[in-house]
Amino acid sequence: MTTVGVDVGGTKVLAGVVTASGAVTRVVRRSTPGRLASVEATEDAVVAAVAEAADGAELEAVGISAAGFVDAAAERVAFAPHLPWRGEPVRARLEERCGAPVVLDNDANAAAWAEYTLGAARDADSAVVVTLGTGIGGGLVLGGRLHRGFGGMAGEFGHAQLVPDGRPCECGGRGCWEQYTSGNALLRHARAGLGTSAGPLAALCDGDPARMTGPMVTRAAAGGDDVARHAFEEVGTWLGVGVANLVAALDPEVVVVGGGLVDSGDLLLTPARAALRRSLVGSAYRTVPVLRPAALGPEAGMVGAALLAGRPAGR
Amino acid sequence: MTTVGVDVGGTKVLAGVVTASGAVTRVVRRSTPGRLASVEATEDAVVAAVAEAADGAELEAVGISAAGFVDAAAERVAFAPHLPWRGEPVRARLEERCGAPVVLDNDANAAAWAEYTLGAARDADSAVVVTLGTGIGGGLVLGGRLHRGFGGMAGEFGHAQLVPDGRPCECGGRGCWEQYTSGNALLRHARAGLGTSAGPLAALCDGDPARMTGPMVTRAAAGGDDVARHAFEEVGTWLGVGVANLVAALDPEVVVVGGGLVDSGDLLLTPARAALRRSLVGSAYRTVPVLRPAALGPEAGMVGAALLAGRPAGR
Repeated sequence: MTTVGVDVGGTKVLAGVVTASGAVTRVVRRSTPGRLASVEATEDAVVAAVAEAADGAELEAVGISAAGFVDAAAERVAFAPHLPWRGEPVRARLEERCGAPVVLDNDANAAAWAEYTLGAARDADSAVVVTLGTGIGGGLVLGGRLHRGFGGMAGEFGHAQLVPDGRPCECGGRGCWEQYTSGNALLRHARAGLGTSAGPLAALCDGDPARMTGPMVTRAAAGGDDVARHAFEEVGTWLGVGVANLVAALDPEVVVVGGGLVDSGDLLLTPARAALRRSLVGSAYRTVPVLRPAALGPEAGMVGAALLAGRPAGR
Repeated sequence: MTTVGVDVGGTKVLAGVVTASGAVTRVVRRSTPGRLASVEATEDAVVAAVAEAADGAELEAVGISAAGFVDAAAERVAFAPHLPWRGEPVRARLEERCGAPVVLDNDANAAAWAEYTLGAARDADSAVVVTLGTGIGGGLVLGGRLHRGFGGMAGEFGHAQLVPDGRPCECGGRGCWEQYTSGNALLRHARAGLGTSAGPLAALCDGDPARMTGPMVTRAAAGGDDVARHAFEEVGTWLGVGVANLVAALDPEVVVVGGGLVDSGDLLLTPARAALRRSLVGSAYRTVPVLRPAALGPEAGMVGAALLAGRPAGR
């Protein structure tokens, strides 16, 4: 009997066989048909990836981690910016097609559950998980339970307002946290700072801000480039300020930071830890939660979905 | 057998007999000896109030709601700005002196539990409770459990930073939410707006901002005074912005607003609801939590403490 976890992202479907202890024994990748594809084509890709991962073994359960909003009942993908689902009963449909129990959640929740169960927060009772991608994904595990919220919308703290009348956000609001701390924010800071710099970052992008990418900024910062390091300091400081607000409200044992930016390690986390300590009320007189890099990398959503499918009590 | 709830505030001790269904059958009041009194005198006052409330009946349990920081184990009052406790094992000491099981928590948590169990959130699965006093007190009940946090510090969202480099706060930080939404903030807005106004508020305070009090602002606003109404709009708007951030993170079913300011009703809550809807990401496409006034008034802490003592499973 095999449990398969599937992470359905905007560009790829990642499916893997995950053991009860969270080990990944086989992984397959397929490209996602995309936002303009039919719902059926997307579901075909998921079902095919599950079958390929299972490789003929009998399915015990399937966990689906979707890059979109999943409803309170964890039955439907209400909306997904990069996928065609618009309220379809995804869980039930995939359960019928896979012939095994299916559990559905959004990718940030699935990743948070994986980090809590096996990863950077595995020794903690409560954890806030902040995933820095293009924007910010979030998940909360409180007292051993994934906190999904009344409408399944908990963890959307990327759109908390950190700066009144601040930068406009794609969500229609202004001053959202993810405008200051995310892959996009890093790139914006670095582009704005490039000027006439002749450092490694300028060399990587031929002095053209438009050609600059996130990985270039990370590489240049690791190599000591001042513009790139300053961009990490900005993003890290705002990360710490936003985390301090979450800690003031929730007082978790651990805060886990995931996503590609975390590969830069202390470049991001040192200023974040300093800002957290500075911004958190009474930090000299209380336990300041540890700010840890995520441990499971880009497979966290897939692994977490499989773990949720195997132990739905976590819900 | 009688359960007594005690609210130990900066100026008074309120003790009451509370039935299992939350009815208050007898209340006594004593003044609190104050911050400079001895720990023993404070505990004497609590014990005497408990005995007077019980009136000879055998004690089943005592719940203590304290205006201070209570540790993670709910054993000690770590610090209380208006009371002499500084880390004393208050729960065990009062248990010994009362001769009955004692449960201890901070006043905001106790009030949140009361509103959740019997008050404005009694039909909800999860609630965020915001109490507006001099500052902001907060409590979270998530999935039927009081969320106290790893160090007992959850709910301190009054010190979330809402405005970068904003108003200095007594906590040492800047731009804390309670600098914009609280009894003090209301008074500051009204004083700043008084100018040469000849309206009802100016009449109440003889045109002298220093003589203005919170209740004057509430009375004047109810009577249509422009300066007072504008102050409520400011405070209400910031209330809604801060609540939107909590909702983005937690997605509770209900948000309860308590404290004296709530007596002003829609003067405060109408601008708060508008700002919540404006600030909350995707509010047109999701369930926006109801923002309700607290139902239990100033006895909420006392009642909640008694309920926690009677049903410690809520912890």
